[in-house]
Amino acid sequence: MARPTPLSGFPEWLPDGRVVEQHVLDTLRRTFELHGFAGIETRAAEPLDQLLRKGETSKEVYVLSRLQDVPGAQGGDDAAEGTGTDRAGARDKQLGLHFDLTVPFARYVLENSGKLSFPFKRHQIQKVWRGERPQDGRFREFVQADIDVVGAGTLPYHYEVELPLVMAEALGALREIGVPEVRILVNNRRVAEGFYRGLGLEDVDGVLRTIDKLDKIGPAKVADALVAETGATPEQAQACLDLAAIRGSDSGVVDQVRALAASHGFTSELLDQGLEELGALVEAAAVRAPGVVVADLKIARGLDYYTGSVYETVLVGHEQLGSICSGGRYDTLASDGANTYPGVGLSVGVSRLVSRLLGSGLVRATRGVPTAVLVAVSDEEHRAQSDAVAATLRARGIPADVAPTAARFGKQIRYADRRGIPFVWFEGRETVSDDGQVTVGADQVKDIRSGEQVDADPAVWAPPSEDLWPRVVPA
Amino acid sequence: MARPTPLSGFPEWLPDGRVVEQHVLDTLRRTFELHGFAGIETRAAEPLDQLLRKGETSKEVYVLSRLQDVPGAQGGDDAAEGTGTDRAGARDKQLGLHFDLTVPFARYVLENSGKLSFPFKRHQIQKVWRGERPQDGRFREFVQADIDVVGAGTLPYHYEVELPLVMAEALGALREIGVPEVRILVNNRRVAEGFYRGLGLEDVDGVLRTIDKLDKIGPAKVADALVAETGATPEQAQACLDLAAIRGSDSGVVDQVRALAASHGFTSELLDQGLEELGALVEAAAVRAPGVVVADLKIARGLDYYTGSVYETVLVGHEQLGSICSGGRYDTLASDGANTYPGVGLSVGVSRLVSRLLGSGLVRATRGVPTAVLVAVSDEEHRAQSDAVAATLRARGIPADVAPTAARFGKQIRYADRRGIPFVWFEGRETVSDDGQVTVGADQVKDIRSGEQVDADPAVWAPPSEDLWPRVVPA
Repeated sequence: MARPTPLSGFPEWLPDGRVVEQHVLDTLRRTFELHGFAGIETRAAEPLDQLLRKGETSKEVYVLSRLQDVPGAQGGDDAAEGTGTDRAGARDKQLGLHFDLTVPFARYVLENSGKLSFPFKRHQIQKVWRGERPQDGRFREFVQADIDVVGAGTLPYHYEVELPLVMAEALGALREIGVPEVRILVNNRRVAEGFYRGLGLEDVDGVLRTIDKLDKIGPAKVADALVAETGATPEQAQACLDLAAIRGSDSGVVDQVRALAASHGFTSELLDQGLEELGALVEAAAVRAPGVVVADLKIARGLDYYTGSVYETVLVGHEQLGSICSGGRYDTLASDGANTYPGVGLSVGVSRLVSRLLGSGLVRATRGVPTAVLVAVSDEEHRAQSDAVAATLRARGIPADVAPTAARFGKQIRYADRRGIPFVWFEGRETVSDDGQVTVGADQVKDIRSGEQVDADPAVWAPPSEDLWPRVVPA
Repeated sequence: MARPTPLSGFPEWLPDGRVVEQHVLDTLRRTFELHGFAGIETRAAEPLDQLLRKGETSKEVYVLSRLQDVPGAQGGDDAAEGTGTDRAGARDKQLGLHFDLTVPFARYVLENSGKLSFPFKRHQIQKVWRGERPQDGRFREFVQADIDVVGAGTLPYHYEVELPLVMAEALGALREIGVPEVRILVNNRRVAEGFYRGLGLEDVDGVLRTIDKLDKIGPAKVADALVAETGATPEQAQACLDLAAIRGSDSGVVDQVRALAASHGFTSELLDQGLEELGALVEAAAVRAPGVVVADLKIARGLDYYTGSVYETVLVGHEQLGSICSGGRYDTLASDGANTYPGVGLSVGVSRLVSRLLGSGLVRATRGVPTAVLVAVSDEEHRAQSDAVAATLRARGIPADVAPTAARFGKQIRYADRRGIPFVWFEGRETVSDDGQVTVGADQVKDIRSGEQVDADPAVWAPPSEDLWPRVVPA
């Protein structure tokens, strides 16, 4: 087997990178749980027909087949389940890997609705897969960390205010390790739809999709596309661009939108409702997370299931990375006909965030192994004694390892040094006096960074708390 | 969308089941890290040719294809990458889902060998997929928790003693929540191979595979199969069964095997080496984890890459569930031609364990939500005050939620009760005296289990530690 090479779009971290990712995941989970979100996981595979309900992401889905069902494959049975074309006909039986955690969550809610209590708040931290072309910050396999709350039949608006604030707190808890400040950009689908319809534009989804390209292609090309593809007049296209340019973190935003609508001579109940919600969101956020939430009227979000607030989040100074935490309110994603479960949620793109933290050298782990203490081995006959010291330390919650071989101590210290293990433990030496009396000296522990070495008892000694476990710190 | 139904072989837990699984995962991870195992994750997808190197599991692999490459599928482009047969030809480009964590780990070690320090100890907790027919305790998607240590070129034998003891400790740490005692059954490939070759049997893999079926088909059929399929005489077959019947937790086992070999008139260097290792393992285990490790000469393990110790683990009283933690020593799994990385590892079948814990009602979570305190809302105008109380509690590490609506308090208490939230918080009531003076009473917190209600300050009050987070306890 030749040395394997990485697979583009499938990121993997070395152990010290994984320490960073694990810290991010643990921090997010803790904040979510402090806010009462129950953790769940859903299976990675969903029926293909469920995954394809929303047409626009269909090309990104990875389809699963069992090897023996793949014609011509080694171990495959050509006669078994027919050709690829036949199999595609049985769409309801085919499985694909989930491409987000929202669609599987909606399915989970419907499947278990009789056993859950609503409103149901859950967090979900899992890998998802998309067969897209890999780019900087865009992967084929990546970790998402989601929070959602769904109600049975109804869901109060206040959750649309609270959920981005939970995310602000979760991401804010990462500031101390060196994660840049975040800016949560919010908009409201009702504002956009009310405004477009008030202007006389009917293809609301088309306008949203075009406006969503603003950062990528710029206003001139967006205006052209609005005219060419959504039937807008140049004046209507300009009005859409004027709306998209409005941005601010207080209720002045609401006044600007109202004034813009008035200048085009229309009012709209839907617009008013959206503006009331958007205004309440920025006002509450200004109190609870000052400076974090900004109303930005160009935020559109690609997915068509959002019906109220929508959110995107940028790392300040890394805006070109794209959103690291997005979501919104959806009213009809989970519905079994008889009952509908409206929800609101956001999803952190953990892999995108972590790859930037590591790639830009913003953060580092103090070491890549859990071990705080390496217990040296003087000779293989005494390995059991070293094992006993390590066991005593571990029983007291101190991560300890034992040297792999009874090499000379210099080599054992290098073993620790190479891994960033701060302490090496030496058992007391036997000395034999002239009259044959055997005495055993005290154990000693050496801080290999300072070289300081002191007598120590494994039942009592502990490393300084900052050395106990690997930490993640600003680089 | 009709109500969806579960997918056979893809287990999912309700929130309280996930509390149990998360506790198991956190406990395993903590024990692994106390022993110095660094956590890593590998991508879920591997090149198909890598996954199929070991022929016997080939039928279990799930093959991935991007939707647009599936002929005839919606959104598919028939002209794109040809038919299934053509694609199967480009085996090196095809991806499959990993079916264990050992093969991907071997690939990770080779890929990153220049950046890792050896011996390298890692733990890895991830989902794996196998397209097998689902049965009790056998899933198509399941979580494994692995520990392995690999050396560069060499790996000292003592790790074959230590790794099962780490697992004994990790699984032992679950006893307090109600997990049954475990028994780790050990054998050594060298013993089996030395014995079979000493008898004159050359098809060692064939004999191992047949012996592996003992529990399933019984000794008579195994004897027949040994004669029919491996060219054994009835006497040789009986000798293999005699070896497989040897079992014990001290070095008496070694003496029995030696005596059996002597009775068949042969000695074997390989056998002696294997017996020395097996004897050292049971002796060390008798000291460090009394009663847990048992030498059982019928343990064969299906996988052909094991070269030394092999392990299986049963839950006492649930032996028919099969092994919940298996592994062994492998010398050549990771090799790039120039260098070889021998290793030893074990893998906990977390989903199998957790499904038994939940299905047999052995354990339960004290609640399915993290929330310890529900802050009541007297009316929507005062929601911000309830939010502030919850924020104060959370800042002190107390998981708190706020009632979804300002329903009457009885309904808010039922909200908490249905979720197992032990405490409900009521803000102090405003009272207006006859002369118009407004006074605000103290906040109160109610233990809804006892009904006891006391004055409380959110900056000071804390729930009893056993109520702070959901716990997992014997059912």
